[in-house]
Amino acid sequence: MKEHDIPTTGEWLCGEGPESDIVISSRIRLARNIAGFSFLHGASVEERKRINDLLREKIHKAGIVDDPIYYDLESANAIERAYLVERHLISRELAEAQGPRSVAVARDESLSMMINEEDHLRIQVLQSGFRLWEAWQRISEVDDKLAELVDYAFSPQYGYLTACPTNVGTGIRVSVMMHLPALEWTKQLRKVFKAVNKMNLAVRGLYGEGTQASGDFYQVSNQITLGKSEQEIVGTVESVVRQIIHYERKVRQALITDSRGNLEDRVWRAYGMLKNARIISSDETMDLLSSVRMGVNMGLISDVSIDTVNELFVQTQPAHLQKREGREISTADRDAARAQLIRLRLQ
Amino acid sequence: MKEHDIPTTGEWLCGEGPESDIVISSRIRLARNIAGFSFLHGASVEERKRINDLLREKIHKAGIVDDPIYYDLESANAIERAYLVERHLISRELAEAQGPRSVAVARDESLSMMINEEDHLRIQVLQSGFRLWEAWQRISEVDDKLAELVDYAFSPQYGYLTACPTNVGTGIRVSVMMHLPALEWTKQLRKVFKAVNKMNLAVRGLYGEGTQASGDFYQVSNQITLGKSEQEIVGTVESVVRQIIHYERKVRQALITDSRGNLEDRVWRAYGMLKNARIISSDETMDLLSSVRMGVNMGLISDVSIDTVNELFVQTQPAHLQKREGREISTADRDAARAQLIRLRLQ
Repeated sequence: MKEHDIPTTGEWLCGEGPESDIVISSRIRLARNIAGFSFLHGASVEERKRINDLLREKIHKAGIVDDPIYYDLESANAIERAYLVERHLISRELAEAQGPRSVAVARDESLSMMINEEDHLRIQVLQSGFRLWEAWQRISEVDDKLAELVDYAFSPQYGYLTACPTNVGTGIRVSVMMHLPALEWTKQLRKVFKAVNKMNLAVRGLYGEGTQASGDFYQVSNQITLGKSEQEIVGTVESVVRQIIHYERKVRQALITDSRGNLEDRVWRAYGMLKNARIISSDETMDLLSSVRMGVNMGLISDVSIDTVNELFVQTQPAHLQKREGREISTADRDAARAQLIRLRLQ
Repeated sequence: MKEHDIPTTGEWLCGEGPESDIVISSRIRLARNIAGFSFLHGASVEERKRINDLLREKIHKAGIVDDPIYYDLESANAIERAYLVERHLISRELAEAQGPRSVAVARDESLSMMINEEDHLRIQVLQSGFRLWEAWQRISEVDDKLAELVDYAFSPQYGYLTACPTNVGTGIRVSVMMHLPALEWTKQLRKVFKAVNKMNLAVRGLYGEGTQASGDFYQVSNQITLGKSEQEIVGTVESVVRQIIHYERKVRQALITDSRGNLEDRVWRAYGMLKNARIISSDETMDLLSSVRMGVNMGLISDVSIDTVNELFVQTQPAHLQKREGREISTADRDAARAQLIRLRLQ
């Protein structure tokens, strides 16, 4: 693994972009496979290695980004792999897989290309704020450039062919990570998610499929990839997310009007805990940061910037803490190191 | 009620005196009645008034303290009476009684003389730290001075006669208010109190009989007043309290050795909550202040002085808050006013 300093946050967590009080990031990923190679579940180690080498070479040749960082995940250790997962640069699946596999990452972390995850190639554009169309434009360009050099597995009838049938067609997943504390606190999320599911969209936790929501973060994404154009899919996610934003904002306003005192109490207590705790778990940190984040966005607290809050969301995660310390550390020691880091940042 | 400014804390809460990390205050009270008058449960309003006037005159004449403050409790309003209870200058019983009754209080609040509580006269000496013998010497002097002017109801066979048989004899109650967070946290209090009860001593909460312990404060006092000399009674309480101090201190030391991290976390979180809460109840305040108090005494936190902590214990109580605001305020508004006061003091 090529060493590089830990950036404080990736582009997607810089806290900028439209609607950034509620939308953390906009993400689009495309699943692609190379014609003439087996899908990965049927590929030998040798074939995987050839795919890995081939795609790495093509990515380099396509000149998609200046000086990308390549991480060879077969040789990376567990902390390094978990670190990339925490930064949303690779999936848990890629981290935990076996054999030749890698990822190429743009310096600003807004683009990552996973090789030999479930498909030969997964291209991801991840940007802060609510910018799905911008992300779509960016990823189309990347996809087009690569298509000039790589012969994608494509069927005129079905579209892009993928290892799992749920991705066949466009191979696209459009997802928006939202911070929904007001809907959560007022117990209105279930209702919202029911409506979202009716639109054939899925709601997931912070780290994708099968993960729990923490810190009141939720990802809304499409489930269907076949029979609709990419633009239709982006458009559907866009409009549903816009409605959720509207709803979250309405509830925040109601909270301010009806129970400003309780809201301020919650936000300031969370801030006080973070500033003073000596031992703190990852889950509690997420919950408290969530309260503070909402407080900052609602103008209830100005002692801390959104940048710092966002940075802490990432930096307090287990692998980040261990990378910082330069060694594996126990859960108990992490809880102490986490508390120390938070105090330092909030001083 | 004669107006006077709210002193920050009475002498008994100044946080000084021997063993003041554990012993808040040493208190002795004597129950006395005047010969030739009915006990109060049989006394008419007219008779109560005569007792009240007589004792007030004698107290003045005896010149026990310079310029004492007299509070006429019949004309005092509910907040003023609750305020005196919170400062431990009168009992709840006296506050809630009917008819002519009053209290004379030394300026430093180390001495108070309740007239027409359960007995005609209750003399109380209350001092900070573990100073029972000093308190005993002081109250004896006061008692002797008054005895020169007042004919106490006294039986050569039984001793001082009192309204309730449990006080007959010496009429003395010796009590020590202790702060026992380490024994509480490690769930060893029950064991300690069982041993205390075997010595015929009682354990009570912060405001005496029938009150709950809050903030890990407990009063240890004698139950027997007859058949033993005052010195024997003081001696028994003294020696039992000394053992509890020893035990609490041992447990504090063990906590530091075995779980310093958890202890610091608890203390600092409590401090963080107090510094940041916008709404806080009286009970939660007591609990958090208790943690901070122990932290200061154990050298785990130095951002706040014991004086400030002690002051807050008193000043955050309901009647104190209302007196400060100069009006009756609702529970919800008190919780906000309390949080504000705490933030101000801990700035």
